[in-house]
Amino acid sequence: MSRKIPESTVRRLSHYLRSLEGFPESGGTVSSEELAARGQTTAAQVRKDLSHFGSFGKRGLGYQVDELRDRLRSILGINRSWTVALVGAGRIGLALFEYPAFRSRGYNCVAIFDSDPEKIGRVWGDQVIRSPEEFEKTIVELDVELVILAIPAEGAQDMAMRAVDAGVKGILNFAPIRLNVPPRVPVEDVNLVMELEALSFQITQREQDA
Amino acid sequence: MSRKIPESTVRRLSHYLRSLEGFPESGGTVSSEELAARGQTTAAQVRKDLSHFGSFGKRGLGYQVDELRDRLRSILGINRSWTVALVGAGRIGLALFEYPAFRSRGYNCVAIFDSDPEKIGRVWGDQVIRSPEEFEKTIVELDVELVILAIPAEGAQDMAMRAVDAGVKGILNFAPIRLNVPPRVPVEDVNLVMELEALSFQITQREQDA
Repeated sequence: MSRKIPESTVRRLSHYLRSLEGFPESGGTVSSEELAARGQTTAAQVRKDLSHFGSFGKRGLGYQVDELRDRLRSILGINRSWTVALVGAGRIGLALFEYPAFRSRGYNCVAIFDSDPEKIGRVWGDQVIRSPEEFEKTIVELDVELVILAIPAEGAQDMAMRAVDAGVKGILNFAPIRLNVPPRVPVEDVNLVMELEALSFQITQREQDA
Repeated sequence: MSRKIPESTVRRLSHYLRSLEGFPESGGTVSSEELAARGQTTAAQVRKDLSHFGSFGKRGLGYQVDELRDRLRSILGINRSWTVALVGAGRIGLALFEYPAFRSRGYNCVAIFDSDPEKIGRVWGDQVIRSPEEFEKTIVELDVELVILAIPAEGAQDMAMRAVDAGVKGILNFAPIRLNVPPRVPVEDVNLVMELEALSFQITQREQDA
């Protein structure tokens, strides 16, 4: 299987899965046209996206909903649960911690860290906020696979490298910097200012074109 | 100017601007190699990204830091301020409302809406949470340009169309659905579950390849 799957394809796979989860559980079929309409793409794009991962469906019969749903879960790595540590118990950290879809999709937050002495020891749900001094020990003991960095730019690179050295498999980064980590550890960036900038860029371009 | 600027280019422009903002204010120069190193890309990519927007810099002399910074701000549409309305006064809405970088970059939240009668009338900072019944009137009166949808999937499409009909220019969407709006109104999606899925996808692929 190639590693060169475009990020946009992965996003569409998530959308296809969301659509399939809206279908009844019993064993119906779905056409690439139906998936395309729900995902605001084309039937050809659906077939191309799925073709990266082997053969699906039968010509003229469409895809088995149950089978395609299971395959997409397996491809996206969510046919299993993941242990997650949250670094940063601020507003964004709390919003993420309480986001119901995380837990329901198998992303289980097993530890929270914050460097603020006022926050260390506080209880969030089933978690006690820990000191960063306990970071490496906790990551190893709880077998943490993913780290969510919800801290300011300062300190984010340091925490990312500590996470990598402690053996985590991936990082979801909300800090507004580009992390420099070994390529074996994937990083997904969520940069809220950049999202707004992408929006104001598009609006500005349209106004100039108009 | 072409509209076909890839999203990944726009992201890198944001990164270049972040780098340039770390330079001293006085009129120095920067090479594409320096920008590339800070943005974890190549000098050729920097030159290609900037070439979409006309000529910058002088061969062998690099770019004027001040000039490039101003041009990037202008290209990204942040050499001006934007009026923003927040729809959804939940955890994510609060995290966004209090995110210091939003205001400092000229994104000014001028109205907050929530459909929960318990929240309507509450005060956040300089804002009173409004009922969605006041939505259209408020958008027009306050000349709101951008709407941030921080609500569940249910209701998001409806609010998006109300925003479009009221005349907003763009939508930042945190609701986990694909919005169906006219192409003249750009939408940026931030889907936190999809970010985690993109991460678990990459880890799963690497484990299969290993």
